[in-house]
Amino acid sequence: MSLPVSAEDVAGARRDIDGIAIETPLLRNRALDEAAGARVWLKAECLQVTGSFKIRGAAHRIARMSEAERKRGVVAFSSGNHAQGVARAARLFGCPAAIVMPSDAPAVKAEGVRADGAELVPYDRETQSREEIAAALATERGAVLIPSFDDPFIVAGQGTLGLETAEQLQARGVEPAHFLCCTGGGGLISGSALGLHSVFPDCEVWSVEPEGHDDWARSLVAGKRLSNAPGTRSICDAILTPMPGEIPFAIARQHLSGGLAVSDEEVREAMRFAFRHLKLVLEPGGAAALAAAVRGLPEGMRGRDVVIVATGGNVDPVAFARILEA
Amino acid sequence: MSLPVSAEDVAGARRDIDGIAIETPLLRNRALDEAAGARVWLKAECLQVTGSFKIRGAAHRIARMSEAERKRGVVAFSSGNHAQGVARAARLFGCPAAIVMPSDAPAVKAEGVRADGAELVPYDRETQSREEIAAALATERGAVLIPSFDDPFIVAGQGTLGLETAEQLQARGVEPAHFLCCTGGGGLISGSALGLHSVFPDCEVWSVEPEGHDDWARSLVAGKRLSNAPGTRSICDAILTPMPGEIPFAIARQHLSGGLAVSDEEVREAMRFAFRHLKLVLEPGGAAALAAAVRGLPEGMRGRDVVIVATGGNVDPVAFARILEA
Repeated sequence: MSLPVSAEDVAGARRDIDGIAIETPLLRNRALDEAAGARVWLKAECLQVTGSFKIRGAAHRIARMSEAERKRGVVAFSSGNHAQGVARAARLFGCPAAIVMPSDAPAVKAEGVRADGAELVPYDRETQSREEIAAALATERGAVLIPSFDDPFIVAGQGTLGLETAEQLQARGVEPAHFLCCTGGGGLISGSALGLHSVFPDCEVWSVEPEGHDDWARSLVAGKRLSNAPGTRSICDAILTPMPGEIPFAIARQHLSGGLAVSDEEVREAMRFAFRHLKLVLEPGGAAALAAAVRGLPEGMRGRDVVIVATGGNVDPVAFARILEA
Repeated sequence: MSLPVSAEDVAGARRDIDGIAIETPLLRNRALDEAAGARVWLKAECLQVTGSFKIRGAAHRIARMSEAERKRGVVAFSSGNHAQGVARAARLFGCPAAIVMPSDAPAVKAEGVRADGAELVPYDRETQSREEIAAALATERGAVLIPSFDDPFIVAGQGTLGLETAEQLQARGVEPAHFLCCTGGGGLISGSALGLHSVFPDCEVWSVEPEGHDDWARSLVAGKRLSNAPGTRSICDAILTPMPGEIPFAIARQHLSGGLAVSDEEVREAMRFAFRHLKLVLEPGGAAALAAAVRGLPEGMRGRDVVIVATGGNVDPVAFARILEA
């Protein structure tokens, strides 16, 4: 079956976002190898522009718009990393952006988006639908709505992370056996699997999610998209999507090997580990894959070359301080 | 006048420590450019093995020892980054190491050194001299004492940071106008100036120190080594040496343009900035040069390409948490 996104699309996205997203480093750390029981290659994507991978997809979507479309602008709804990615990408392309964000979103997130010149459209999350507001805005302005994951351009854009990682490993003469990535809607992992498999077809790709919110792990076993029980909570706010995205999941069925789940306490421990040993600031959702390594990788991954993606570092300082002090 | 260390020594050190110290990334950040008023290239040396630049010098010193010397081992005195750098470098060269450390040093520092297999030699800082203990140990064992800065091998080793940065900039087609580096004894800045000037002879090199502890700035103006008033305090514990090292200062007189000083509060602000915008963990002494950028660079550096070295990230989690929450 032909997939909605191809490895060629990912390679094309890489050219399109060159000079906007940076090549983030692939780090090695002895303490991490010892904890994981493997040779770990940490993809430090928290060092990406705007502090997460989200600029890759957003920049690719805007790069593929016509001049006329760019003049009319873009719309997105998000209170987090996607909002920042879209706002920055829009600024770099000189394109107006409106971000629909809950009126009670943390001030620092609103400021970040405003600092990039985006228009903030607040809504009440009790009584209003952000999807409807964003759709109405897009229609009214003739603007392009940029979804956060279920879109072929976004998947191809986020997938540049996988391709880039593969090329970095290739340059070091390393063939990775496993690739573990924090997973929410699945844009990043599905696109990255395409990019990675274009270089290393045998590398196994695994989702990592919060315990009790492991829709990807269960969906991959079931062969169909399953959702999480409503009301499931976790500190990994950035990756708490209700179920796998349709396009990401279609790719994942051919390209993913399965999913792991980590507890909130394991995620906190991974954040402390990153602070102490890696000198990196990670947000909870960005530390999920690292948590699977810090607690010790599953038997089958031990002794191998394993990629761990640290997807983002946008975390409130007070929340981070509490985790450090715990 | 011929200097005790040459650019060729730095280039040689680079070859000697290849595969031990890593090439740390040179990061760009829009918020940092805006705060500094320049195009800032942040050398993220906190991502170095052991969390600071110190492994560069230690590894070079050990690399230049004979097999017989390595068997007898090395001795160092330090409770901080130098201890960790020596312990790790010794481990990688399969060489025994003894580290003389105050008996009341933070447990995490002692653990770090022990985790690398080094022997810990505690002393009482009220009644004993670490210099004497280390010298006696070295004599007794026929071991090599590894000083933390006033040594040509150490200077050449730390200098690989400057050479590496110059090559990274050259690869991007950038000619830096200024290079700002946190300065204690001066091993890093003097060696780095040699390495940097072998590629960019016109780049101005500036020390950055805590206010009231600006022995480098004053010594450079006076043309001779001056010390700090005894009892001067700062949160930048890693760079509170009493006066410039003799070898570093001899180099600095020919290669440095001057020195800047930053307040403790500016250093704390730089640490918060690194957390929020760069997703990097910096220790106070490692954030001094960044502090000079975050508060806004001096007029003459504005609009230019400026390198800022973030030298280390080994900071106590509770101390870091307090700074984040302030």
